[in-house]
Amino acid sequence: MSKTTKLKVGVVGASGYTGEELVRLLARHPEVELAAAVSRSLAGTPLAKAFPHCRETLPAELVFSGADPVALAKEDIAFWFLALPHGVAAEYARAFVAAGRRVIDLSADFRLGSAALYKEYYGAEHPAPELLAAAPYVLPELADFAAWRDAPLIACPGCYPTSIQVALTPLLRAGLLGKPALGALVINSYSGVSGAGKKADVAYLYCERDGSAKPYGIPRHRHLSEIEEQLSLAAGAPVVVQFSPHLAPMKRGILTTITAPAAGVTAERVREVWSGTYAGRPFVSVLPAGLFPETGHVAWTNRADIAAVADPRTGNLVLTSAIDNLLKGAGGQAVQIMNLAAGFAETAGLV
Amino acid sequence: MSKTTKLKVGVVGASGYTGEELVRLLARHPEVELAAAVSRSLAGTPLAKAFPHCRETLPAELVFSGADPVALAKEDIAFWFLALPHGVAAEYARAFVAAGRRVIDLSADFRLGSAALYKEYYGAEHPAPELLAAAPYVLPELADFAAWRDAPLIACPGCYPTSIQVALTPLLRAGLLGKPALGALVINSYSGVSGAGKKADVAYLYCERDGSAKPYGIPRHRHLSEIEEQLSLAAGAPVVVQFSPHLAPMKRGILTTITAPAAGVTAERVREVWSGTYAGRPFVSVLPAGLFPETGHVAWTNRADIAAVADPRTGNLVLTSAIDNLLKGAGGQAVQIMNLAAGFAETAGLV
Amino acid sequence: MSKTTKLKVGVVGASGYTGEELVRLLARHPEVELAAAVSRSLAGTPLAKAFPHCRETLPAELVFSGADPVALAKEDIAFWFLALPHGVAAEYARAFVAAGRRVIDLSADFRLGSAALYKEYYGAEHPAPELLAAAPYVLPELADFAAWRDAPLIACPGCYPTSIQVALTPLLRAGLLGKPALGALVINSYSGVSGAGKKADVAYLYCERDGSAKPYGIPRHRHLSEIEEQLSLAAGAPVVVQFSPHLAPMKRGILTTITAPAAGVTAERVREVWSGTYAGRPFVSVLPAGLFPETGHVAWTNRADIAAVADPRTGNLVLTSAIDNLLKGAGGQAVQIMNLAAGFAETAGLV
Amino acid sequence: MSKTTKLKVGVVGASGYTGEELVRLLARHPEVELAAAVSRSLAGTPLAKAFPHCRETLPAELVFSGADPVALAKEDIAFWFLALPHGVAAEYARAFVAAGRRVIDLSADFRLGSAALYKEYYGAEHPAPELLAAAPYVLPELADFAAWRDAPLIACPGCYPTSIQVALTPLLRAGLLGKPALGALVINSYSGVSGAGKKADVAYLYCERDGSAKPYGIPRHRHLSEIEEQLSLAAGAPVVVQFSPHLAPMKRGILTTITAPAAGVTAERVREVWSGTYAGRPFVSVLPAGLFPETGHVAWTNRADIAAVADPRTGNLVLTSAIDNLLKGAGGQAVQIMNLAAGFAETAGLV
Repeated sequence: MSKTTKLKVGVVGASGYTGEELVRLLARHPEVELAAAVSRSLAGTPLAKAFPHCRETLPAELVFSGADPVALAKEDIAFWFLALPHGVAAEYARAFVAAGRRVIDLSADFRLGSAALYKEYYGAEHPAPELLAAAPYVLPELADFAAWRDAPLIACPGCYPTSIQVALTPLLRAGLLGKPALGALVINSYSGVSGAGKKADVAYLYCERDGSAKPYGIPRHRHLSEIEEQLSLAAGAPVVVQFSPHLAPMKRGILTTITAPAAGVTAERVREVWSGTYAGRPFVSVLPAGLFPETGHVAWTNRADIAAVADPRTGNLVLTSAIDNLLKGAGGQAVQIMNLAAGFAETAGLV
Repeated sequence: MSKTTKLKVGVVGASGYTGEELVRLLARHPEVELAAAVSRSLAGTPLAKAFPHCRETLPAELVFSGADPVALAKEDIAFWFLALPHGVAAEYARAFVAAGRRVIDLSADFRLGSAALYKEYYGAEHPAPELLAAAPYVLPELADFAAWRDAPLIACPGCYPTSIQVALTPLLRAGLLGKPALGALVINSYSGVSGAGKKADVAYLYCERDGSAKPYGIPRHRHLSEIEEQLSLAAGAPVVVQFSPHLAPMKRGILTTITAPAAGVTAERVREVWSGTYAGRPFVSVLPAGLFPETGHVAWTNRADIAAVADPRTGNLVLTSAIDNLLKGAGGQAVQIMNLAAGFAETAGLV
Repeated sequence: MSKTTKLKVGVVGASGYTGEELVRLLARHPEVELAAAVSRSLAGTPLAKAFPHCRETLPAELVFSGADPVALAKEDIAFWFLALPHGVAAEYARAFVAAGRRVIDLSADFRLGSAALYKEYYGAEHPAPELLAAAPYVLPELADFAAWRDAPLIACPGCYPTSIQVALTPLLRAGLLGKPALGALVINSYSGVSGAGKKADVAYLYCERDGSAKPYGIPRHRHLSEIEEQLSLAAGAPVVVQFSPHLAPMKRGILTTITAPAAGVTAERVREVWSGTYAGRPFVSVLPAGLFPETGHVAWTNRADIAAVADPRTGNLVLTSAIDNLLKGAGGQAVQIMNLAAGFAETAGLV
Repeated sequence: MSKTTKLKVGVVGASGYTGEELVRLLARHPEVELAAAVSRSLAGTPLAKAFPHCRETLPAELVFSGADPVALAKEDIAFWFLALPHGVAAEYARAFVAAGRRVIDLSADFRLGSAALYKEYYGAEHPAPELLAAAPYVLPELADFAAWRDAPLIACPGCYPTSIQVALTPLLRAGLLGKPALGALVINSYSGVSGAGKKADVAYLYCERDGSAKPYGIPRHRHLSEIEEQLSLAAGAPVVVQFSPHLAPMKRGILTTITAPAAGVTAERVREVWSGTYAGRPFVSVLPAGLFPETGHVAWTNRADIAAVADPRTGNLVLTSAIDNLLKGAGGQAVQIMNLAAGFAETAGLV
């Protein structure tokens, strides 16, 4: 395919870790042309200077654009990726959608179905409630309606929620876990430090995090709103979980361990249901009995690995999953969404 | 105190990570003389050669002794520390106790009260059942009878069990958690790689573990036997827990997160009970509301940090703790036991 | 291009870190089909089981073949990659070349021009001296004759030598450094632990290497033979260097720092010569004044970054370079060689 | 010794990594009482809150003092440790010395003998030139005059300079290296990230430094002034070196590798001279032939390990050393200086 026929894409918020990952993926994607990268702080800087680790694939002439939604909306860009803080993303989404551009938003702005829930967890009025209904939440392997592929605005799931839903959603949909009691689903996640973003903060210095693991955000991390909303939809009833995130001394990766009352369901049955859901899908791997996921096995990939164990002593299932938080948990999943929405191979630019 | 009056101590199994840590601690301990270090593989080697990281504190003339329990039992050693695999430790314990020496055993051989439970979890007949009754299990801050200080043989708790008991035992004893339902206590622990020992195994190579977190030993890690036995004693009723250990990309440390149905107990009440238990004890720190333990804060210390959060949405308590697995989880706790048994200051050689 | 027309390739020695990297790269290469992966220890195992980190790209049906050079030589494989210990590689090379297959050897067996030098450094007779003359040594950006693209057997440079030659060879060829005095070129390299290979050895355990840097192999690392032979060819006179390798607490990467008497040559002049050599080459980047290479910038890429500083106080040049030891230092460079030898784009499968 | 008779000491600049290390060391020192810790940013905060990793040894009631040199000078403190930026330290030193307190300064303010050299390297007039003559530079094992023990103000060496001098100074003093030619001493050092201090800077985030090594400050790092001044004093003639520092992906440690023309000197002779210099000194270890220093062996110790290799091929010596940059390279060495100046055991509080 000649370069002139490639689909033009752009990234807003390109200076953070997620933005950087999107730039890296899109610059080497065989079907698209990275035509714009927007960053307030880096406007005017050549991308190749800011991102030395993918220098050989970046268009030599490309410099960061300034952050002006109205001006950007006029550019001939087919897909915009928003890697922005919540609250800020909505402003760009509104301008781009109004101009007929398609938007894949990696912020929390359009992940929740309700503006009220948004306000409860994010502490502010929803910045664009009029767009909520038209913005499907898409975890590609779990989206249960084909029409999302034509939506102008798509909400890309959060990193923790992705690691949790790939394990739980098929089981809840199949009714395997019944209606879990309040707090009976216990979810412990363990995230790499890149999840905290690229901000100059003593708490994320090398010397503070090297060799040190810690819990944080217990008992009410913001992602809880998204996790519970999605799991409730899958279960067809309200699901309230215990979610305990932790920071791990590693750069990339999320490892999630879920304890769920099994009500007699075997690990084999869990793997059957998972295998049904993920048949033919390249980016979720159901591990055979005896194997566990490791973040090192999914780092630098867009894959989720999932495993199930049943404990006859307790009557619980223990489900584990691993993803790369910057890929399947953010930029990779966003590109996967674009691939499907644009009719490319699902794996294009992702393997 | 002149050197000649110091108490003589020895370490068997000195070549592993726990043995090494004991050697390091005892060599700098102000009240004892490290008089023997036993290692089959290193017999005849100077300690200062094998342990370059603590070279300046090691007696220059000390070489590793060979592994002969009968001969060693004749040496004038007041306390022997056993850092040996389960099954092997018992043989030394028997010889040393018979010779009137005191023994602090860091293996699993004398941690369980019952030979039957030992067989169930360790897959072999107990190697010295006749010693079980006389071998108290001592987590110093939680030992509820003073007589242990005179016992000839003392079982030092495991690393995971220590991180769990410091949080749960006071609450179970006080009846705060009632009789927890089967599997309702959900315990996730993240351990540093040194917990796997110093063995040449591809799975523990730097390149396999750097940046990679994984679960393992789910649902039935061997420490489960010790955990449940001790928690059941504290609760006065059988306690069956869901214990999910993980390997984290760090050298030292265990971070444990426990979810427990709260039955209306507040975090403040938890901290009150803890503060009662640990008043005046230098090696357990109850963190104020808002703070969480970090393994980096307890690495290279003999301290456990513990914190409590109550979740009104789920009705659960989330308890977290952090220790250094080689110190409070092994060698440090063993020295603390000796300090108390010998009448030294509890912190001698440990700060 | 349909799968049936893809070039078939195979890897021998696929279980080590270099073999694994070759498998990963070839499985996702758009122009080739990974048709064979050979490993004595893993024969019969599915690749997807042994290499979970690239599971989604591996042919599901592919299992490791056993290690029989004669039988393998009969397979319809266009290019074989040998990721074997020195001494062993030659046996396969001989069988494959005799059968008309092309071979890219990543061992040291064909890197040296002389069997005598091989014996001096590797302590054994050269295993296939009759093939030496026909086996060009190819660092793609520095190969100074086009004919290598047709050679049946190509020697892929070592990791340290690659990091050194990309900086020094253009300067020596241009005569900028004159004839360096004995030992006046001082080369310090810091390598990631994966350079030590995937062997179960206590010295490379996570707990031994985490947070620890050390020199080793001073003053006569085996790579010295290759380094000096190649630099001497470039200089047109014998070059004897001081080469001090170190092990760094990281998984991937080599950082090399070279001090060379400058004889009045400026850093600008060095960059000019480099830019001439590397114009149009995607995998060597000449950094502008003020920037230094970082291994984190080249990790997971096939790129070398190089920089030059002149010190007016000492009259020295300080040249620095960074590569990923498993990519530009091994598997990536081997694929780059294949790309050029097979007429593919130089970057195919490498970005 | 009862608490009331202990020597009172204080730390200014206690919030940085060096200050924190001093607080940790002094709080557990058997001969002193940590009576003051000064930090502008933490004034009023309890030390135990800011430094959770050494909570069990900190005086419970101690809070950070505000930063007022004049008021502090009035406190009954025998020794003040200054862990401040250069330029700022001098102000405190002047006030404390005037009040008759003793000062151990860990900044660069009093390390150089000449105010002109200070201006050249630090870009500002020396802040207290009148104190320079009375402020000896003391690397305890190398100080060649006993009188320093009575000096009111002592300059504690820098981290890189310490790692270099322990290897080179005895050899230069003994004339073993003759008068090295300009730039012929080539020094490569590799520092842990804590050397960069505890500042909120993107460049030192975990995700930027994990797995990444890089050179920096070439060719003219500020420590060069101190290194060359001290080596010139040792050689009795001007010494101009090539010093290339690097940042390594580890928290603590400096590994230094020095190439020096040997002029026929053997490694055995080097070890003899070193052994003469360091006989009876607990904190420098001369490694036997065949061993190299590792930063992991000296981390958390106040020890320097040094080794020598001679290369008959090049005529060079390769000297290597390792220290913990926060201990022998900063806080540990400062306490060692105090121990000697106050007449305590050299190892008090340091093992």
